[in-house]
Amino acid sequence: MADIKAEIISIGDELLYGQIMDTNSHWISQQLDQIGVKVVRKTTIGDNTKDILAAFKHAEHRANIILITGGLGPTRDDLTKPLMAEYFNCDIQLVPEAKEDLQKFFARRGKELTHLNELQAHLPTKCTYVPNKMGTAPGMWFEENGCIWMSMPGVPHEMKNLIKEFVIPKIKSLFKLPSIYHKVIKTVGIGESWLADLIRDWEDQLPGHIKLAYLPSLGEVKLRLTAFGKDQSQLQMEVADQIEKVLPMITAYVYGYDQDSLETVVGRLLKASNKKVALAESCTGGYISHLITSIAGSSDYYNGSIVPYHNEFKAAELGVSRDTLEKHGAVSEETVTEMAALVRKKFKADYGLASSGVAGPGGGTPEKPVGTVWIACATHNQVTTKKLQLGEERMLNIQRTGVGALNLLRKVILNDTV
Amino acid sequence: MADIKAEIISIGDELLYGQIMDTNSHWISQQLDQIGVKVVRKTTIGDNTKDILAAFKHAEHRANIILITGGLGPTRDDLTKPLMAEYFNCDIQLVPEAKEDLQKFFARRGKELTHLNELQAHLPTKCTYVPNKMGTAPGMWFEENGCIWMSMPGVPHEMKNLIKEFVIPKIKSLFKLPSIYHKVIKTVGIGESWLADLIRDWEDQLPGHIKLAYLPSLGEVKLRLTAFGKDQSQLQMEVADQIEKVLPMITAYVYGYDQDSLETVVGRLLKASNKKVALAESCTGGYISHLITSIAGSSDYYNGSIVPYHNEFKAAELGVSRDTLEKHGAVSEETVTEMAALVRKKFKADYGLASSGVAGPGGGTPEKPVGTVWIACATHNQVTTKKLQLGEERMLNIQRTGVGALNLLRKVILNDTV
Repeated sequence: MADIKAEIISIGDELLYGQIMDTNSHWISQQLDQIGVKVVRKTTIGDNTKDILAAFKHAEHRANIILITGGLGPTRDDLTKPLMAEYFNCDIQLVPEAKEDLQKFFARRGKELTHLNELQAHLPTKCTYVPNKMGTAPGMWFEENGCIWMSMPGVPHEMKNLIKEFVIPKIKSLFKLPSIYHKVIKTVGIGESWLADLIRDWEDQLPGHIKLAYLPSLGEVKLRLTAFGKDQSQLQMEVADQIEKVLPMITAYVYGYDQDSLETVVGRLLKASNKKVALAESCTGGYISHLITSIAGSSDYYNGSIVPYHNEFKAAELGVSRDTLEKHGAVSEETVTEMAALVRKKFKADYGLASSGVAGPGGGTPEKPVGTVWIACATHNQVTTKKLQLGEERMLNIQRTGVGALNLLRKVILNDTV
Repeated sequence: MADIKAEIISIGDELLYGQIMDTNSHWISQQLDQIGVKVVRKTTIGDNTKDILAAFKHAEHRANIILITGGLGPTRDDLTKPLMAEYFNCDIQLVPEAKEDLQKFFARRGKELTHLNELQAHLPTKCTYVPNKMGTAPGMWFEENGCIWMSMPGVPHEMKNLIKEFVIPKIKSLFKLPSIYHKVIKTVGIGESWLADLIRDWEDQLPGHIKLAYLPSLGEVKLRLTAFGKDQSQLQMEVADQIEKVLPMITAYVYGYDQDSLETVVGRLLKASNKKVALAESCTGGYISHLITSIAGSSDYYNGSIVPYHNEFKAAELGVSRDTLEKHGAVSEETVTEMAALVRKKFKADYGLASSGVAGPGGGTPEKPVGTVWIACATHNQVTTKKLQLGEERMLNIQRTGVGALNLLRKVILNDTV
């Protein structure tokens, strides 16, 4: 069975000038991957007639499905609609159903349909009108030149709704999709080449239809296994067998699979053992709390946080001893140990997690340069600490401390519940 | 003067399968934009010989500068190096300088050079070796087929260092760059089409060499003015004149320009007036504190936060009246008002900012559905509140509440200091 291939075209000068990050094509990739459609290319071009038409032309030779975002909307920098009419050689006409939907959309918000917005109900005659429930720029579906084309607005939640409600079901109904099975093993605390050395023998014996990729990111390396074949459950079994083989070689570093993140894994562990966590964050300024609370249902295991950004508040609001702060400084094993233990009690939690460091760019000293960070995790009877020596960039330091602290919490929970 | 055109090629199956977001090409775009190099296309392809070679071939017809990320590294899924040697018809040889750098890199970390890592010192003979100070995969610079080519690893901080230290200075020395001048006006609290209606007359009179684009994102719309010409200071003056004309039409919504974010603007206002802020976050779980503390120097104006995620801690740790919580609930104007006033005092701040809402997906009721959020900002003598009615998605709700709360704080500060 031949692969069903897709290309994603993102339109907008703002994407080329670096004013907006193209998160859309990433999300679309994930959706297509899940149903076995192979994304073969992503192309980003500007608001430029010639480049857009050239991209259409190339894409239709490479792909069965072409998904286009951007270049739609009420304002004048929008080009996609007239170009699609030109490309498919058809007129643009008012679609009464689209106009009604627009009127309803504005009525619900207590507003009149403006002239600019009404223009959005005028569509190429060869397209199928796809209502956009989240906004005003409609989706346009074409089956032309042997391909499927879908044009969507670039606003992420509008595009996502169109993909989920319309595009994915439609693709599933039109194509017999092949089986691709991915499994991602998530590791933390080991570098790419050391990981590769550990699993070399296993990698060498992988069958040809199972591919391995190393995906490093901040403090983590993901191992992605991709199996190609006809039968999904067969592939799933084969990959499970391979994982069973590799796991003993890397147990110490594996924290989860696929969509797992450190915060979801920690959340599951806490929930399963009916334990609660509280945080005292200094250099991370609320970031780790945000990671934990970004997970739905986190109120089941997260009690609260305090961010005492100055020594004064570390003492007055959290109760860190002024003596400790004076003698060892805020960025020290002693201070972070007290912070973890104190916040645990303050918020009646089972685990207290704390961070204190020099995030930078200012605040470094010869003894404690920028990137020096202490983290700690307290239980009822002990505090585990760790020193991280990170880099110069404030945001990376905050994020890496987040990875380190969540992993420390994970290990302490595992140790605690063994 | 002809535009100097660049194309960015990102290589990696993980980018097509949606397992990693391509933040690299976004960042590279920003750097090139700043020096007047026009990015004309971004192409993302998989770890596939045919696609990579095809992308090279197309790119060299469109661009003067071709920047390639990914497909380099110690492990076996890496393809770029042999393909570049093939494309430019040359061998791969050990570069002694590269090997020395690798040995030093590992020695500093107290590790031996592994065989896998040593292979990274073998490079195509036609390339100039560019040391990678942050990692082990070297940069490769080619001047071939009338183009400049630079291949870099995909790990963001390694790639960034190579671009900043080597690529940008090199491009500046090789090309006479034209003038492009961008100015972005940042607005909050008004939708794209309403904004377009407000400034239509102004937009109609813009000269042909100044382009306007609307860039909507969560709760914000950016207006980007792009001027093309020869003389940077001339363009800058013309754009400044246009901004002076449009500003009176949209004053209420403009919060900043260019790289300004609500958190940098709020930070500047606080610093200028020597005022401090503290936060009590419930539904946002530390997110707003994270935004504020992500800015270098925020310790000058940020005192601290508390995240009392349950009513118990809102009462015990922050001092919200149990009566208020019982009578009106945690998600209410009354509770959020107390939270803002109390956290202001607790952390000895001038402003107290608070959030409480139903972030979802659970926790909604008929009276307070998912997306119901109250925010408040307290000064020494009053509390300003606002209700937000947001959507169903937890993360969007958290982020939109962040935008709303920072904008509320901004307005209160402006009002206070007038």
